[in-house]
Amino acid sequence: MNLTAEIICVGTELLLGDIVNTNAPFISRHLARLGIAQYHQSVVGDNHARFKELFAQAYERADIIITSGGLGPTYDDMTKEAICDFLRCKTVVNDESLSRMQEFFKLRGREMTHNNIKQAVVPEGAEVFQNDNGTAPGICVEKNGKYVIMLPGPPRELEPMFEFQVIPYLFMQPMFDDSAILSHNIRIFGIGESAVEDKLYELMTQNVNPSVAPYAKSGEVLLRVTARAETPLEAEEMMKPVINRIKECLGEYIYGIDVDSLQEVLVEKLAEKGLKIATAESCTGGLVSKRITEIPGSSAVFDCGICSYANEIKNKVLGVENEDLKKYGAVSDTVALQMAQGVLKLSGADVAVSTTGIAGPGGGTPEKPCGTVYIAAVTKNKQIVRRFMLSRGTGDERENIRHLSTMNALSMALEIIKEI
Amino acid sequence: MNLTAEIICVGTELLLGDIVNTNAPFISRHLARLGIAQYHQSVVGDNHARFKELFAQAYERADIIITSGGLGPTYDDMTKEAICDFLRCKTVVNDESLSRMQEFFKLRGREMTHNNIKQAVVPEGAEVFQNDNGTAPGICVEKNGKYVIMLPGPPRELEPMFEFQVIPYLFMQPMFDDSAILSHNIRIFGIGESAVEDKLYELMTQNVNPSVAPYAKSGEVLLRVTARAETPLEAEEMMKPVINRIKECLGEYIYGIDVDSLQEVLVEKLAEKGLKIATAESCTGGLVSKRITEIPGSSAVFDCGICSYANEIKNKVLGVENEDLKKYGAVSDTVALQMAQGVLKLSGADVAVSTTGIAGPGGGTPEKPCGTVYIAAVTKNKQIVRRFMLSRGTGDERENIRHLSTMNALSMALEIIKEI
Repeated sequence: MNLTAEIICVGTELLLGDIVNTNAPFISRHLARLGIAQYHQSVVGDNHARFKELFAQAYERADIIITSGGLGPTYDDMTKEAICDFLRCKTVVNDESLSRMQEFFKLRGREMTHNNIKQAVVPEGAEVFQNDNGTAPGICVEKNGKYVIMLPGPPRELEPMFEFQVIPYLFMQPMFDDSAILSHNIRIFGIGESAVEDKLYELMTQNVNPSVAPYAKSGEVLLRVTARAETPLEAEEMMKPVINRIKECLGEYIYGIDVDSLQEVLVEKLAEKGLKIATAESCTGGLVSKRITEIPGSSAVFDCGICSYANEIKNKVLGVENEDLKKYGAVSDTVALQMAQGVLKLSGADVAVSTTGIAGPGGGTPEKPCGTVYIAAVTKNKQIVRRFMLSRGTGDERENIRHLSTMNALSMALEIIKEI
Repeated sequence: MNLTAEIICVGTELLLGDIVNTNAPFISRHLARLGIAQYHQSVVGDNHARFKELFAQAYERADIIITSGGLGPTYDDMTKEAICDFLRCKTVVNDESLSRMQEFFKLRGREMTHNNIKQAVVPEGAEVFQNDNGTAPGICVEKNGKYVIMLPGPPRELEPMFEFQVIPYLFMQPMFDDSAILSHNIRIFGIGESAVEDKLYELMTQNVNPSVAPYAKSGEVLLRVTARAETPLEAEEMMKPVINRIKECLGEYIYGIDVDSLQEVLVEKLAEKGLKIATAESCTGGLVSKRITEIPGSSAVFDCGICSYANEIKNKVLGVENEDLKKYGAVSDTVALQMAQGVLKLSGADVAVSTTGIAGPGGGTPEKPCGTVYIAAVTKNKQIVRRFMLSRGTGDERENIRHLSTMNALSMALEIIKEI
C-alpha cells in the first residue's frame, strides 16, 4: 500500500494572512502517522473556477483528496458544489444533517435561513460525518478508488471530525485491508537534533521498516518510529526492539512516549505522586505557570505561582535577601535558589521551580549577556540550580529565550521529583 | 496596477505537519496591505521535479512568485537550483554573502564546510538580500517583468528580511511607480464581527477606494482600511474621513490603530502615564502576566503577578477573606475584587487586574457553568468588576476561555487607566 493524499484549504482569509492555516499541519500529522504520503498542499480563495482547476490536478495526482473550508451557507462557499460539478455527482438532502441543523438553531434561539439548507445537501451515496461543533457536515465521496473528503474550515469543527470520524472510516476501507501502520512518538528534551542523529545514526539510516525519523521542534526533538506490518500486533512487535535501543542511547533525555508536552508529563507525574508544585518567575513572566495550568486538572497539583518581576517583590513576597540581590544581582544562582525556596515555603508545595534571566532585547551586560538565565528546582531536601545561555545571538529572541527557559524549568521539575 | 503574487513554501517538514506554516500568512498580510492580490498558495516537499512543475504554474499565473525554504547547504535544498534551471540563469558567487557566512561560522567557532558555499551562489544580476539572522541570503530575480523572490525558511530569518529589505525593494520597482497603496489597521475589542458589520454596513459596502474590510481574529475584530492613490499623501487624505467615521461609530471599542495587540497598547499607555500594573490570576494561571511581559520594556510597568490557583493562596498571599471564599465561592465578584485589591496593596502598583473563573473542562455547576469568569480592575480610588460567560458550549474550550479572559482583563485595565 502506497497511498498519497493531497490537502486543499479553501478560503480567501487564508490568502490574506488573516488566519494561520492550522488545518493542513493537523491533517498532515495524522496522515504521516498512517503512512500516507503527501507531495503537495494548496490554499485557494473562494473562487469556483480556480478551486475546480486545482481540484482537478489533485484528483489526478493523489488517492485521497482532502479539502477544508467552503462548506458554509453563503454564496461564497462553493467547495461542495465545485466538487460535485467535477465528479458529476447527483445530490440529496441528508436528513440527519438537516434536523441537527434545525436543532442547532433552535437551541440558540436563532432563525435558520433558507441558505442553511444548502449545508445539508450531500452527494448521493456519500459518507456523511455529522458535525458536533457546528452546522456543516463533513463528506466523503468515493469514486474510482479515489476518496474525496470535504471538511468544514473551523479547526474546532474539523479536528474532532477528522480524528474521530474520518480516520476510523478510512481505516475500514479496502485499501487498508492488508496492512497496519503504527507509529510511536518519542519526545526528547535537553539534547539537540544533530546530537540525536549522531547517537542514533545506524538506527536511523539502516532501518526502513520500522523507520526512525527525527523532527526538531522548538527547543526539543521528536523521534517518530513507524512500522508497517500485516497486523497492528505485528507492527508493535517490530517497533519494540527499536524503541528499546533508542531508550538505551538517549535514556535520560526521553521525557515521554506518545505524549504531547513536558507540562502534560509533569502534571501527570505530580498527580501520580500526590505532589504539588509552585513557581517563582522573573524572566518568564508567568509562562511557566501558564503552561502548567493549561493542562486540564492541573489544579490538583498547582496552587501558587509568583511572578516577581521587580527586586522589591522578590524580597517582599519571596523573601530573597536584599543583600544577595545587591551582591549577586537578580540574575544569579543565589537569587534563583532563594526564589524557589521562597515560593516553596509560601505555598506549602512539595516542589518549586524558579527562573531569573535576561530575555532582552535590553538589559544584557558582557558578563551576563541577553539569554543568560538561572533556573532552580527545589524540594524540602534537595536543590538544583543551573545557568543557561539561551541566546543564539541573533535578532529578536525575547519569546525564544522565555520559551526555552520555561522548557528547562519544566524539565528540571521533572528531574527533581524523579526520586520522590 | 493589478499585481498578483503567489507563495510557494518548500519543505517536507511542512507536509508532515511537524511545523505550522507561519511564513505564508506573514507574507500574505504584507501583500494584502500593498494591494497585491493572491489566488493560490502551495506547499511542496524537497523534490526538484515537483517543485519545478509547481513553480512553472506559478510563474505562468502570477507577477510575483515568492518562495520560502530550500536555500540551505544540503543536497535536499534545491529551490534556487530548480528556479535557475527553469529560468536558465547563469550563477555567480556573491562575495558579501560568502564573507558574511565565513564571519558567521568564525564567530561561533564552527567549521564552514564546502557545502555552505552553495548558499552564497546567486543568479547573475540578481538582487541579494543579506541575511542578518542566518546564513542563506534572500534573492530576487527579475525576468520579463516577473519577479521571483527566494527567501530562507526559518521565520526569524524570513520575517525581518521580507519586511525591511524585500518590501522596500519592491516599492522601488517600476510597477509601483504610478500608485501608492496604503492601509491602516483598526483594532477593535469588545464587540463581535457581525455587530461591527451592522454598524458599518454602508461604509463597508459602498466604499471601494478606500475599502473597509473586517477580519475576525480570536476574540477581536480587525478593520483594514486601504486606499490606492497616486501618492502616499493622497492615499492618507482619502482614508482620513473614513477612519473618522469608523471612530464615530465604534469609539469605545477601538483600542488602537496600526498596533499589534491589547498588551502592546496597555504597556505603552502605562509607560506614558508612569503607572505600574499588577496581576492576580486564578483561571488564567499566569497568562495575563505572560502577555504583559512579552512586550519588551514591560519591566518598567510591571513588578508583580500572583497566580493564586488555590483558595489558601488567595487568602494567604492576597488577603481574600476566607469567609467570603466560603460564602460566595472563589468564582465570584467579591473574590475577584479582593484579589485585585490584594495584589494592588502587596505590590504597591497603581492599577491591578484579577481573573477568577471556570476554564473547564471540569468544575462547572448549573449556576456557574464552565466559562463563567469574573474579572476585576482596580486603582486606589476606582473599581470595576464584571461577570463574563465565555463558553460557546462546545468541545474543549479551556484555552479559549483562558484567552478571552485575558483579553478582557487587559481591556479592563486599559479602561480603568483612561482617566488617570
